[in-house]
Amino acid sequence: MPDRIFNFSPGPATLPQEVLAQAAKDIINYNNKGIGLIEMSHRSKDFIAITDETEANLRLLLSIPANYKVLFLQGGASTQFAMVPMNLLTSDKTACYLNTGVWSKKAIKEAKLFGNVDVAYSSESSVFDHVPQQGDYTVPAEAQYLYFVSNNTIYGTQYHSFPSHETLVCDMSSDILSTPIDISKFGIIFAGAQKNMGPAGCAVVIIRDDLLDRVPENIPTMFKYKTHADSGSMYNTPPCFAIHTIGLVLKWLKGLGGISVMDAMNQEKADLLYAAIDKTDFYKGHAKVSSRSRMNVTFNLPTPELEAKFITEATAIGLDGLKGHRSVGGVRASIYNAFPKQGIQQLVQYMDEFEKKNG
Amino acid sequence: MPDRIFNFSPGPATLPQEVLAQAAKDIINYNNKGIGLIEMSHRSKDFIAITDETEANLRLLLSIPANYKVLFLQGGASTQFAMVPMNLLTSDKTACYLNTGVWSKKAIKEAKLFGNVDVAYSSESSVFDHVPQQGDYTVPAEAQYLYFVSNNTIYGTQYHSFPSHETLVCDMSSDILSTPIDISKFGIIFAGAQKNMGPAGCAVVIIRDDLLDRVPENIPTMFKYKTHADSGSMYNTPPCFAIHTIGLVLKWLKGLGGISVMDAMNQEKADLLYAAIDKTDFYKGHAKVSSRSRMNVTFNLPTPELEAKFITEATAIGLDGLKGHRSVGGVRASIYNAFPKQGIQQLVQYMDEFEKKNG
Repeated sequence: MPDRIFNFSPGPATLPQEVLAQAAKDIINYNNKGIGLIEMSHRSKDFIAITDETEANLRLLLSIPANYKVLFLQGGASTQFAMVPMNLLTSDKTACYLNTGVWSKKAIKEAKLFGNVDVAYSSESSVFDHVPQQGDYTVPAEAQYLYFVSNNTIYGTQYHSFPSHETLVCDMSSDILSTPIDISKFGIIFAGAQKNMGPAGCAVVIIRDDLLDRVPENIPTMFKYKTHADSGSMYNTPPCFAIHTIGLVLKWLKGLGGISVMDAMNQEKADLLYAAIDKTDFYKGHAKVSSRSRMNVTFNLPTPELEAKFITEATAIGLDGLKGHRSVGGVRASIYNAFPKQGIQQLVQYMDEFEKKNG
Repeated sequence: MPDRIFNFSPGPATLPQEVLAQAAKDIINYNNKGIGLIEMSHRSKDFIAITDETEANLRLLLSIPANYKVLFLQGGASTQFAMVPMNLLTSDKTACYLNTGVWSKKAIKEAKLFGNVDVAYSSESSVFDHVPQQGDYTVPAEAQYLYFVSNNTIYGTQYHSFPSHETLVCDMSSDILSTPIDISKFGIIFAGAQKNMGPAGCAVVIIRDDLLDRVPENIPTMFKYKTHADSGSMYNTPPCFAIHTIGLVLKWLKGLGGISVMDAMNQEKADLLYAAIDKTDFYKGHAKVSSRSRMNVTFNLPTPELEAKFITEATAIGLDGLKGHRSVGGVRASIYNAFPKQGIQQLVQYMDEFEKKNG
């Protein structure tokens, strides 16, 4: 194997090499303090400084307004599927969901445990090959919140303009920090870290202050947003390593020039790959063009046999993790923020050669 | 600072240096695969092998019977405070709790959200300076389970013989793997990793199979033990780095000779420190002798001023993290499995010298 493969995994996903190097150094001896990062008390001055700096850089990069709290929680986005309705929905109320794939379906299932759920739109009948545009659905007036998934990893679809609601809740796990957004349009944004932000084991939640007052008193302490907002995510021992590594990723992103620079890089990377798909009939994109994701590019080859061969031979030359999700099949190239352009250039070249040999 | 201080922190806590070195190496390039450990898909063969080996070693070290599942969850022990009653208690039923400190109090608070709670014993009136013996309390016949905390980090108390119940639930966060136990006497054992097992960000749950059938259907997917039992802790992305590091700690423990060897080492370490406390009136242990913990040794000096001086001067010579919890004050030396004997020898020597200068 080469020192470093190109890792197209949908998550946990590739991270910047300089982040890995720094995390490795810090694990053994943090800042020459004679103690490893993962051995430090979460209440130590050093670790609190890490958390504060990580939050400050996230606020800076995303221009998070002062009336929003940033929380670092455990349990991944899947726990948020339950926490959102547990905190914002009651049995006599309704929430509105846009169903654009496996992740929204799972969120809908959890919400139904707590109240009424109105699924205002579903693209399931076309294997979730697109996301809705405004006008494609109606949000009931009584909806406590409108929930959507900004990027759908499995199908390779992404919203390029967002739904609108007074309390807009977004699962942004797979495209947070990839493009500038206006946080003030959202009630809650949450995201598992293991795609664009860091390692698995931490979900970032950005929540507007007024929503904290809607949280019922009689829910378990750990599942109340208010608990974590009131304690600066230190109610109990937080996922220290994940928070630190997120901090390193944010510093890397800041060093590159921030989200608008990253946005342009992501556009360039996605354009390269979609151009390779579009120039031939051998490769066929799964997502409708207007819903195409810049994070996960999904496509098929003429037969499942060719797809299997494509993936196996790609792995052999260090282009790894390209197997599509079983519900779509085919190929999926996950090209999050930290995925290097050279990897896409190599993939495009490989696609050309593969088609010549097998087309 | 020296290359390595002695870290008496109650958790996250000191880890074996060889574990840190291996974790650091793996983060950059796992097993020469050209991919960092924290970048690998949790569904990859390599990561599944890590989880399987970690579970197998835990089963081996603790002699976990086949009718118990091992789960690697997020959210720490604090999430277990809610998950236990959510899974095992209903509003018309009763659970029995032994209150021996902050952690059991927090667990009692969560249980009350789900059903009746009988607190059969409390040592609160004596600042939790002891744990009860069997016979000190009566468990109601109708109790669905009996809950206790095997080691109380804040007060430095520990059970040296366990309560008994058909469904015995134990928060073993701070002394799991420190001494041989008979798992078959328990219904559920859970433990946050960040004391004896690894970094923060993972709680290990050991649960008897029959209890999985008692889990109500209508609770959120992520909070059901059954979800994680049925999916081998892979329902969603698990805390990969924490699981891997736990795996490294277990290999280290196996290499040392397993839990009975560790048990003897822990006894020797604790004996050294308690002997230093007992041989003078300058230092006074907080816990009653029969309840003394081998993991967290708590003691006071004649005045709060002397305690502050003791802690500050200790930190300056590389004996760090000795400040007691605010509810007890004084000094706390947390000496979990990975804490080296030399650190205790240095502490004992420092205690001698400090008393000579200030006594």
